[in-house]
Amino acid sequence: MSLLLPGHRLELGPDAPLRLDCGVELAPLTIAYQTYGRLNSDKSNAILICHALTGDQYVAETHPVTGKPGWWEELVGPGRILDTDRYFLICANVLGGCMGTTGPASVNPATGRPWCQAFPVITIGDMVRAQLRLLDYLEIDQLFCVIGGSMGGMQALEWAARHPQRVFAAIPIATAARHSAQNIAFAEVGRQAIMADPDWCGGDYPAHGRKPQRGLAVARMAAHITYLSEAALHRKFGRNLQGRELSWGFNADFQVESYLRHQGSTFVERFDANSYLYITRAMDYFDLAADHGGILANAFRGTKVRFCVISFTSDWLFPTAESRAIVHALNAVAANVSFVEVESDKGHDAFLLDEPEFHATLSGFLDGAAEHRGLPRGAPP
Amino acid sequence: MSLLLPGHRLELGPDAPLRLDCGVELAPLTIAYQTYGRLNSDKSNAILICHALTGDQYVAETHPVTGKPGWWEELVGPGRILDTDRYFLICANVLGGCMGTTGPASVNPATGRPWCQAFPVITIGDMVRAQLRLLDYLEIDQLFCVIGGSMGGMQALEWAARHPQRVFAAIPIATAARHSAQNIAFAEVGRQAIMADPDWCGGDYPAHGRKPQRGLAVARMAAHITYLSEAALHRKFGRNLQGRELSWGFNADFQVESYLRHQGSTFVERFDANSYLYITRAMDYFDLAADHGGILANAFRGTKVRFCVISFTSDWLFPTAESRAIVHALNAVAANVSFVEVESDKGHDAFLLDEPEFHATLSGFLDGAAEHRGLPRGAPP
Repeated sequence: MSLLLPGHRLELGPDAPLRLDCGVELAPLTIAYQTYGRLNSDKSNAILICHALTGDQYVAETHPVTGKPGWWEELVGPGRILDTDRYFLICANVLGGCMGTTGPASVNPATGRPWCQAFPVITIGDMVRAQLRLLDYLEIDQLFCVIGGSMGGMQALEWAARHPQRVFAAIPIATAARHSAQNIAFAEVGRQAIMADPDWCGGDYPAHGRKPQRGLAVARMAAHITYLSEAALHRKFGRNLQGRELSWGFNADFQVESYLRHQGSTFVERFDANSYLYITRAMDYFDLAADHGGILANAFRGTKVRFCVISFTSDWLFPTAESRAIVHALNAVAANVSFVEVESDKGHDAFLLDEPEFHATLSGFLDGAAEHRGLPRGAPP
Repeated sequence: MSLLLPGHRLELGPDAPLRLDCGVELAPLTIAYQTYGRLNSDKSNAILICHALTGDQYVAETHPVTGKPGWWEELVGPGRILDTDRYFLICANVLGGCMGTTGPASVNPATGRPWCQAFPVITIGDMVRAQLRLLDYLEIDQLFCVIGGSMGGMQALEWAARHPQRVFAAIPIATAARHSAQNIAFAEVGRQAIMADPDWCGGDYPAHGRKPQRGLAVARMAAHITYLSEAALHRKFGRNLQGRELSWGFNADFQVESYLRHQGSTFVERFDANSYLYITRAMDYFDLAADHGGILANAFRGTKVRFCVISFTSDWLFPTAESRAIVHALNAVAANVSFVEVESDKGHDAFLLDEPEFHATLSGFLDGAAEHRGLPRGAPP
């Protein structure tokens, strides 16, 4: 599949392994990425967009597999909030992903066959380390901004905490400095659904010409509920029936059932089950405070990064309390931080949707940060 | 299995079929039930306890399969809130269940083999209709009280709405007058997990000597998360590790994962997968307002039943708003209703747990209702 995917590739050879948190040196390594806009002459206008668990690098263009618009297409373009006349946007498929960047579906050079479960467990830190290689390759010393929602927000936090000199501003959205017990629980249900599918074959399904599609679909369905709010589900579907009457059976009687089944069945067309395992595990392992002596503020001590932390009132997967904990830590070290809790009934997915207050917040923060960074309005020189 | 289960059985023969909401006449029919305490001479001290989705009739005794204490053992006994010196307690396994009452694992008289997916789809109304047969058999004209949490609360509401002359008081706890879109969504994920398991065999697993245990375990795991609050999960487990270090793999690294896996694996030992499908479907179909012209108040017009509606602050599966909707409807018809939202961080499961404010509410309401009913304190004459 990956050979057919359009876009840029950075290939890192066996001489440049990526040292992972688990101790493994991973090589060779492909990083698949997309860019939008143009890098200015002093390379000061780059924004790194970090995608979420099931997102990818096709931020603002038709998706090569699904044919759907890019996941942040509304935000990206000339004159838009992520203004391609002003900024150079980069988004790379995460390490462990399945849209071109090296992941469990990639070929293990030691065997000539897909890595599958022999792929090393990766972390959010490892994902960022891979992105760092891409920046080095593009010769970008400092990002103007790193931005992302959900797992993308974890990456933004990791960037700011571990590589503060490489980041001018960071916008972690609908995220947390650690995966909560409830988040780990939901991730584990998804993994168990996949691993319970006999077609998973102990992770070695490519060798058997099989795919754990039923398990992966169940994982997606369970996760999808957590991306929406109860209010959003009520507004969109309520108890509306799919047909005119109850079926008195186990067909999709209710529209919400049909919707969920559709989410499951379309997801398996574009996503690799082992990638789902590895990426959810990376989120589980994320705990920025634990990596800094148990005190989150220590992750940001002395930081010069300008932060804009954003949460949504109806997001129960990454509730505002998680963002507030980040803001408290930043305030404790006198960091430059804006915090906006956006009123929305759209749940966690609000960061992907048309939310005027969210967009106004992004726009205002980016404009202010660009001014401080000395980026001129309009096209780069 | 059911032959070995201790307790009472009411057997209804082919001459006394139960007319179900779907139109099918179900016969023969077994109702398995337990009682505690003694029925008084005028049969006015009976309390019907309605159990939840995965509960059963073993309310206050060692469970015959798991060996664990009864699910409301703390509440039931001499001098306790459900005082066996004062009241005659009845709890029947619900229609569609798998602990002795007729359900999809029972023998279909037409084939001599288990019903499986040929079992008719049942409703909360049908469950209550079966309980009504039991009351007729016991010659109890009017229950002193009907009480239940979650799906048990749906039954309590159904009793009060459909058979008001048979109920003096009703205590619906942590419940709703209809399954919400989010509730249907979670139920559907569980059903899909079961039906995705090849060992489900289209529902006909008994004929194949198989059981969809992996799918049922995943369904249970997903559901179990919804029974707890994020705060409870954080307090109980947080990010505590199972061992001393991360495994860098997909073992149960975190205690919350190990706990969930345990919930899944023990559940499949005591529950039938088809029962799980049918009972969740009954909850989905429950919509008391829709059954009364779309106006919930109409379900209770002219009622003389005394209500005590109880919710828990951290219950996000059946949030307080659902209880409030019931209370509004009851107020609209000038019903006698008490409403208590109990402060608790234990989530939906709080109704099964030691919550002093909850217990005090039950105790106060029951004492008052018993006085109005003219039930003497102490043992029945």
